[in-house]
Amino acid sequence: MREDVRPLVNKALDLVSPEKAGRRVIALENPGRKGTSACVGWLYTGLQVMKPGESASAHSHASSALRFIIEGKGAYTVVDGHKMDLAAGDFVITPNGTWHDHGVEADGATTVWQDGLDMLLVNQLDANFYAVHPDRVQKSNYPINDTVQVFGGPGLLPAGEAWSKPYSPLFKYEWGRTYETLVNAAKATDGSPYDAIMMQYVNPATGGPVMKTLGANIQLLRAGERTKAHRHTGSVVYTCAKGSGYSIIAGKRYDWSKSDIFVVPSWAMHEHANASEREDAVLFSFSDVPSMVALGLYREEALADGGGHQKLPH
Amino acid sequence: MREDVRPLVNKALDLVSPEKAGRRVIALENPGRKGTSACVGWLYTGLQVMKPGESASAHSHASSALRFIIEGKGAYTVVDGHKMDLAAGDFVITPNGTWHDHGVEADGATTVWQDGLDMLLVNQLDANFYAVHPDRVQKSNYPINDTVQVFGGPGLLPAGEAWSKPYSPLFKYEWGRTYETLVNAAKATDGSPYDAIMMQYVNPATGGPVMKTLGANIQLLRAGERTKAHRHTGSVVYTCAKGSGYSIIAGKRYDWSKSDIFVVPSWAMHEHANASEREDAVLFSFSDVPSMVALGLYREEALADGGGHQKLPH
Amino acid sequence: MREDVRPLVNKALDLVSPEKAGRRVIALENPGRKGTSACVGWLYTGLQVMKPGESASAHSHASSALRFIIEGKGAYTVVDGHKMDLAAGDFVITPNGTWHDHGVEADGATTVWQDGLDMLLVNQLDANFYAVHPDRVQKSNYPINDTVQVFGGPGLLPAGEAWSKPYSPLFKYEWGRTYETLVNAAKATDGSPYDAIMMQYVNPATGGPVMKTLGANIQLLRAGERTKAHRHTGSVVYTCAKGSGYSIIAGKRYDWSKSDIFVVPSWAMHEHANASEREDAVLFSFSDVPSMVALGLYREEALADGGGHQKLPH
Amino acid sequence: MREDVRPLVNKALDLVSPEKAGRRVIALENPGRKGTSACVGWLYTGLQVMKPGESASAHSHASSALRFIIEGKGAYTVVDGHKMDLAAGDFVITPNGTWHDHGVEADGATTVWQDGLDMLLVNQLDANFYAVHPDRVQKSNYPINDTVQVFGGPGLLPAGEAWSKPYSPLFKYEWGRTYETLVNAAKATDGSPYDAIMMQYVNPATGGPVMKTLGANIQLLRAGERTKAHRHTGSVVYTCAKGSGYSIIAGKRYDWSKSDIFVVPSWAMHEHANASEREDAVLFSFSDVPSMVALGLYREEALADGGGHQKLPH
Repeated sequence: MREDVRPLVNKALDLVSPEKAGRRVIALENPGRKGTSACVGWLYTGLQVMKPGESASAHSHASSALRFIIEGKGAYTVVDGHKMDLAAGDFVITPNGTWHDHGVEADGATTVWQDGLDMLLVNQLDANFYAVHPDRVQKSNYPINDTVQVFGGPGLLPAGEAWSKPYSPLFKYEWGRTYETLVNAAKATDGSPYDAIMMQYVNPATGGPVMKTLGANIQLLRAGERTKAHRHTGSVVYTCAKGSGYSIIAGKRYDWSKSDIFVVPSWAMHEHANASEREDAVLFSFSDVPSMVALGLYREEALADGGGHQKLPH
Repeated sequence: MREDVRPLVNKALDLVSPEKAGRRVIALENPGRKGTSACVGWLYTGLQVMKPGESASAHSHASSALRFIIEGKGAYTVVDGHKMDLAAGDFVITPNGTWHDHGVEADGATTVWQDGLDMLLVNQLDANFYAVHPDRVQKSNYPINDTVQVFGGPGLLPAGEAWSKPYSPLFKYEWGRTYETLVNAAKATDGSPYDAIMMQYVNPATGGPVMKTLGANIQLLRAGERTKAHRHTGSVVYTCAKGSGYSIIAGKRYDWSKSDIFVVPSWAMHEHANASEREDAVLFSFSDVPSMVALGLYREEALADGGGHQKLPH
Repeated sequence: MREDVRPLVNKALDLVSPEKAGRRVIALENPGRKGTSACVGWLYTGLQVMKPGESASAHSHASSALRFIIEGKGAYTVVDGHKMDLAAGDFVITPNGTWHDHGVEADGATTVWQDGLDMLLVNQLDANFYAVHPDRVQKSNYPINDTVQVFGGPGLLPAGEAWSKPYSPLFKYEWGRTYETLVNAAKATDGSPYDAIMMQYVNPATGGPVMKTLGANIQLLRAGERTKAHRHTGSVVYTCAKGSGYSIIAGKRYDWSKSDIFVVPSWAMHEHANASEREDAVLFSFSDVPSMVALGLYREEALADGGGHQKLPH
Repeated sequence: MREDVRPLVNKALDLVSPEKAGRRVIALENPGRKGTSACVGWLYTGLQVMKPGESASAHSHASSALRFIIEGKGAYTVVDGHKMDLAAGDFVITPNGTWHDHGVEADGATTVWQDGLDMLLVNQLDANFYAVHPDRVQKSNYPINDTVQVFGGPGLLPAGEAWSKPYSPLFKYEWGRTYETLVNAAKATDGSPYDAIMMQYVNPATGGPVMKTLGANIQLLRAGERTKAHRHTGSVVYTCAKGSGYSIIAGKRYDWSKSDIFVVPSWAMHEHANASEREDAVLFSFSDVPSMVALGLYREEALADGGGHQKLPH
């Protein structure tokens, strides 16, 4: 096992490359910031394709990562010895300092997932570390999906010694119960004027974000629902998980449907709409908002004019 | 609405009486501390029977209360305008300062629930307040069970403004998902040597106890399972929710089966056993352990001798 | 060294007695609650006289204690091996679980101090523990008054590992700088309408109270100053440290001058006045307000009528 | 008053320029990162000279700033209406979002101070905001130095409503008591093997750093003292406030004496020595370590080899 600080130059590439072994990665680049690997702000996102039987070798780093499963079958992630199987719509984290490896079982199907990382910021802060696990693939020391079984009860946590690590012990958030929660909440509450029915994925031991630097949300727009515009510090990457619609971002309309990815830069005014009058739409998103809050830099503001809606050019 | 401090003498009785309207209450008294209304330490517990169509009038107090439903149909509690229906095994809280009223719908069945309160301690601290709601029955301003729909998702919380009141926004913990969580966790983890598979009911916004003064746990003993002995500060009231077994408390054996109630005093050595080799057993419990932790007085200790088991007299 | 839980009956007496060795103690008893050792609420306070060369043997307990020095010379307290010399007006804590012993040096003068303890509450909660130190007098492992030198800088704390114990690392608060702070603050701020220039003795590592169960304040009433009335939960014991004046408590006037002790029960309306037009007056006080806050039971209220002043009977 | 988000390009320059009005500023540039205004990591530091009667106009920004006074007489800073006079060795903060202006009184002397800002990071995060105060110079609404009088007592805080803003209410840390604290602590404790007698300037209301993004320390090296080497994430800017000595940073020796400024980059091994056998030496430093801690990226490591000292090339 080796572990050291990477030099500043090309650190991002150094970090990315071990992740790419045996995988096809498309990093989503911001046309306005070519060469930085940043898709918005300092956020990295990429689409990865993995075929049955392929896997990435076990490693850890100080940057935090998350994954949202787009499609596939038989994928898995192992985090600190906890193995989780992954299906479309599942959200999984590999926090700062945890050992992790990924793959697709031999009897699975080609899987596509979206990665999100804070590595560009962590590199900029000269605070990244990288280590290779002594084994190519971690041994799984626990029953599969044990973290979901133990930490996934509603309003329940294991009694006794409290979880004190700075990230969620749940690791995986399954699509089934997540979508069910959105649908139930949509019946019970009006939600937010700016975000409709939006749930934050949280660390159940604290109620706070899943990791210190990156957070993630899932939101449902009811059939025909249109939100009002607001803006806030922090950069956001959205992925459409269900349905279709459009967002107006900084005065420009962007249409989206399932598996489309779009971004909202820090302080850009934005509002969302479900284009269907019959089906609900669901947006997954991740952001560096937890970093903004931790540094005392979070700020938000509603659009005062135009009934809360941005004007589009003719 | 009136609101004032009660005189110290008979404050407990003052407080209890408004709760008794239209109900049959049996307070469980500690034979060693007659006349105090305390069943163990400063904890009050009582069994209440309510018939279809009966209800208790809306009020609030600075003491915190909780309820565990023993049996019945059509019961409900309203907390600060949020109405919840209650079935056997459900756990519900009515925290310090919240308006609450209870009843059984006219088409329900006679319901028995167990109350737990910290009022004896709060009275002793000269810190109780009592107020009567202007309406006999609170208007329900939200869809029924809305708090469960909004705050009951696994690892999910509404995004936006965080819940900041000093108690759980979930209010109700339903038996179905609670028992399912215990069964799942029993497959995924060994649990605690002293408490088997024990989950704490938590405030999902903090991961802490449901209220500042009172906490509650639910624990599953697998078929044939027997725990080791330990002791801790804080008094505990147990109710058997499923199955049967026995506990050895301060060197004496107490057998229990469904709906039995027993107590473990502060610092008494205790261990539990499931008497069945086929069925799991479930114990609900509530305690003042959160008060002990808040005051820096929590302490625990395992039994070192006898292989971790207490000796019983011949 | 022995350490165990005392039986509930007479636990207070058990606890008090080891403290009395070689000392003369007068416990201040509430005439309305004889036999309880409580002077107000669950607070214990006593005056202790110690002659030169006398000392109390080293011990620890789960209850928390504090001392305010009334008069004398050459007194000292040792807390977990940190020895502090004590002069009139100094405030010192001996927190839950710390080893402590006290005495007066052979070349000192007869010393009177006031003790404050939470032991009655801790006993009521069945959470007290008592242990005798293997040595009659603790060895002092640090330079005298080291905690004041290290933790007593204004807005400064030792860098590196943060202090994490649940009480103040400062242990001693010296009269000189405390009074100087009051005098300076009186020039710079109006203070509180209810408490004039009141400072809380804090744990500098958190800004919170010095201990989890007990807190202490020091307040200055400027020449001729009279506060408005308010009330709050929590019981308070006051000692006049300088000057003279009077307090109106629950509608009755109590005059006080240097070294007088008086109490304000929970939720009793109270206001203070400096009787002198030339000299400032200073009141030391300790209370269980931190316990009220920790348990979510703190509440306060200003007197709305009579211009904020209570009416006295003719 | 105007307030908006600056475009990303040249945002740093935009921000700096209003600060420069009427002042002479020398930004300390990192020769290895020309054109960035960063002297180490993302930290900005500059030396400013202001003549008697000069002042900078009142403004606020989301980036946090601090000042260490090198020399002069009659300087002042006003923060949110609190005016403070400043002498050599004083440390003052102008936190995120506060109105602030600076100047030198007409009867003062030319003043040199060192600025430290996090603006480069805040700009990089697209989270900066800038506003001009309606008045060129803020009215001072409080007695001069009132925050020091009110919040500067050792182990004392105003009772009542707690300070809840995310920065220190003390604003100014005076050299006199700061140096006195170092001298006292040097007699009472060995201090840290890596940092000798090092105190963190803290927010007295929390015990945490003075601001969310930037922290500051002051450390004393006793006559002849030499520390061992360690390294940590976070960038540090040091200023010699007294005496002389040298530091070995990443294997290279840098000598310093009063008013010299030097830096230690993130994760660079470093150790310090006082070159005098008779006089103590004092180093002021500020850093982004609080940002590292807030983001979960703080890590430190002692040098294991060479008796804890780095080898210098011959």
